[in-house]
Amino acid sequence: MIVPVIVSGGVGSRLWPASRQSHPKPFLPLENGRSLLLNTYERAASLESVADVVTITARDSSFKTVDEYEHYDGGPVRNHYLLEPQGRDTAAATAVAAAYVAGAFGDDAIILLLPADHVILDREGFRAAVAKAAQRASEGRIVTFGIEPTGPETGYGYIEVDGENAVRFVEKPDVATAQSYLESGRFLWNSGMFCFAAGSMITAMQDLCPEILEKSRLAIEKGDREEFDDGRIETTLDGETFAGVPKISVDYAVMEKVKNLSVIRADIGWSDVGTWSSLSESFARDADGNSAIGDVAMVGAHNCFVHSENRLVGLVGVDDIAVVDTRDATLVVKKDKAQDVKALFEQLRDAGHEAHASFPKGRRPWGSYTILDEGPGYKVKRIEVRPGGCLSLQSHKHRSEHWTVVQGVAHIVNGDANLVLEANESTYIERGNIHRMENRGKEPMTLIEVQTGGYLGEDDIVRYEDIYGRS
Amino acid sequence: MIVPVIVSGGVGSRLWPASRQSHPKPFLPLENGRSLLLNTYERAASLESVADVVTITARDSSFKTVDEYEHYDGGPVRNHYLLEPQGRDTAAATAVAAAYVAGAFGDDAIILLLPADHVILDREGFRAAVAKAAQRASEGRIVTFGIEPTGPETGYGYIEVDGENAVRFVEKPDVATAQSYLESGRFLWNSGMFCFAAGSMITAMQDLCPEILEKSRLAIEKGDREEFDDGRIETTLDGETFAGVPKISVDYAVMEKVKNLSVIRADIGWSDVGTWSSLSESFARDADGNSAIGDVAMVGAHNCFVHSENRLVGLVGVDDIAVVDTRDATLVVKKDKAQDVKALFEQLRDAGHEAHASFPKGRRPWGSYTILDEGPGYKVKRIEVRPGGCLSLQSHKHRSEHWTVVQGVAHIVNGDANLVLEANESTYIERGNIHRMENRGKEPMTLIEVQTGGYLGEDDIVRYEDIYGRS
Repeated sequence: MIVPVIVSGGVGSRLWPASRQSHPKPFLPLENGRSLLLNTYERAASLESVADVVTITARDSSFKTVDEYEHYDGGPVRNHYLLEPQGRDTAAATAVAAAYVAGAFGDDAIILLLPADHVILDREGFRAAVAKAAQRASEGRIVTFGIEPTGPETGYGYIEVDGENAVRFVEKPDVATAQSYLESGRFLWNSGMFCFAAGSMITAMQDLCPEILEKSRLAIEKGDREEFDDGRIETTLDGETFAGVPKISVDYAVMEKVKNLSVIRADIGWSDVGTWSSLSESFARDADGNSAIGDVAMVGAHNCFVHSENRLVGLVGVDDIAVVDTRDATLVVKKDKAQDVKALFEQLRDAGHEAHASFPKGRRPWGSYTILDEGPGYKVKRIEVRPGGCLSLQSHKHRSEHWTVVQGVAHIVNGDANLVLEANESTYIERGNIHRMENRGKEPMTLIEVQTGGYLGEDDIVRYEDIYGRS
Repeated sequence: MIVPVIVSGGVGSRLWPASRQSHPKPFLPLENGRSLLLNTYERAASLESVADVVTITARDSSFKTVDEYEHYDGGPVRNHYLLEPQGRDTAAATAVAAAYVAGAFGDDAIILLLPADHVILDREGFRAAVAKAAQRASEGRIVTFGIEPTGPETGYGYIEVDGENAVRFVEKPDVATAQSYLESGRFLWNSGMFCFAAGSMITAMQDLCPEILEKSRLAIEKGDREEFDDGRIETTLDGETFAGVPKISVDYAVMEKVKNLSVIRADIGWSDVGTWSSLSESFARDADGNSAIGDVAMVGAHNCFVHSENRLVGLVGVDDIAVVDTRDATLVVKKDKAQDVKALFEQLRDAGHEAHASFPKGRRPWGSYTILDEGPGYKVKRIEVRPGGCLSLQSHKHRSEHWTVVQGVAHIVNGDANLVLEANESTYIERGNIHRMENRGKEPMTLIEVQTGGYLGEDDIVRYEDIYGRS
């Protein structure tokens, strides 16, 4: 029995502007139009002898994750969510995974720990490597996947190996060191993927980092567990307890010290796709070496990559660049400088530029909204509510809202009135009025909202009822 | 007496996507935030002994041109507009200029013919060259301004000179030819600027291209002349007559054949700014050689130019490129391939891509509109009406409209009702209802319009009254 545990965390600042705090890296699309996260899920859920998948993610990303998984069209899988009130690095995530899986499936259950935001092009190779790892894990060993290096990569950590055994972990090297690693044949890339029996990890952590293990276990016990109609089980970790778990990577806390660490040499088309350059490597190229997602036109461009979300991008006479075009920000980066996007991101963050964190499109449990326009005293949004979606019953202290339905049917509460509005019908929500919109139909409902008022922040909201537990 | 005649025509397809059919090159901003057109006007209107300026432009661009000129803060100038129902090339424009100026100011009036969309950095040099040209023109000569070449430019036409006389005009040469021109010292760039007495040009055209002259003169006579309260005089050329004027450049029709052509050697920082590369040359650069207009952040970028209209543009590690970011299209072009933007433009045009011609922001006599969103069955616009602005009294056959005022005060006709709406007030214009909005205030009025209906084209409009004569 293999239980994949998908660990979904981190913003991916080098993938700005498509990735933001509110729309992190795992949600970025690959060439098949599906997100990194969904690709990872499909890879894991379609393994033989997998009936349950555990996902560890930030509490605020849970409904987006549930959304993503709904696109999975393989056989039935039960989903378990472990929701972190805050990120505590990979040692805590590993401890939570081991404790949860041991509790639910026993000490012998084999955990396949997978970062949510990596690419693996060779799915057959991945399956073979997992089968081999699971065999060793069932013999009590902790197994790491070492990737055969294809170049002197300075963006990855390395594992020095001796046969099947890990000798040591090393940090990201400089070019000369990376070159010597490559030539020695003794070094593999550290993929961050691991395989072990739940009981083996618990034993190792009891020895190496007992505080992390105990507090993680307690955060589950004291956490908030809920089973949903669709079969999924969500456990929100206890915030106070989890906040006390030491923040450290699993490499430092366990892997560098553990005795029985075994390495699987994997040549499976792996990449951590940490930059636009490496992400673009996973796309097929045309005769000129170009690849693109979105509306793109080119003349005399070579080896370029375009990610366009909303508008036409035209390239003329440029080589070896990536262009990332989003609703509120555009990035143009030389592929071999893709690491430096982080510096740009930090520059924007330090300058307090809005575009570093927020995203004009927000996903919510009930659907999504897109900011169309903002000006002094007003804001215009397109609000899309999925079938069955229902916003919270709410009011605002500082703004009034004008709603015009343009698609579908909206059931609306406006003060004392209950309204059913179809396309081309509108209502006015006066400042202070309690209101709600709901889509009871089978088709999406779209509504244009014009807000007016002296303060238009998202935090001007009083929630009275919420089917998603946010009130 | 000098009468500058500004000729404003042509789309500038190599400056896509900032320039479009509905927003052509003369309206692009220079570093001072003012358009090429306004910069040309300021240069002309501020010349000594100028009391009148004539502008020849497309009929559809007239109100945008009037708008631009309102930003002129020099002394009083009377504006004359000659509005072309369609472009008939520069020989027709020159004939119209000569006939109009001769009629209004006499045969001796000196015409200074200026393309609207060129840059001249050295304004003092320009004035000195004009003074010299006007002197020669008053002696009966037709004068052209030849620009001292600063390199083997292949994008310009050349004039071969012998002392003060033009020997011949030559088309855009190849690099080798351009190099030989440069070395010979006998060739100057053809700037397209001319200076002549109205009567001299009429005499020359009577001899060289009498049909162009006669039909152009007739197009004025039969045209529609109107004087406005602000003193400007608009003459819309008679469409049928003007359509019959042979379409040919003034170089071919007159300058290559005329006997008494004199050349002023001008070293005045001139450029036709035909490409993003040449336009960027007119901007000051920072220590890394970069220049920008709009919201821009850079890390490790060199010799780049950014024109951003709506959003943040980030550059990382790129050199020698221009990035042009507009509401619906983004261009990234290597500066030395800037000529090839035309090929991209043609590719888009041939593919019928909307972004080749239309522009999501439209200027109108009453103000402007911006398309914020479009989807099946709906469209969202921000409508900005200037103080005193008034849309036509109109109705639509296929769409209804929801108006919400977000700034200023709107006087509205909606069917039988007359409404005065302030910010946070709204009204519903039912399909078929006669309606109008007007801004009688002293501040701008902004309104969000949500259209719904089966057909949402701009041409679904019946106009009943219009203060701008469009009904």
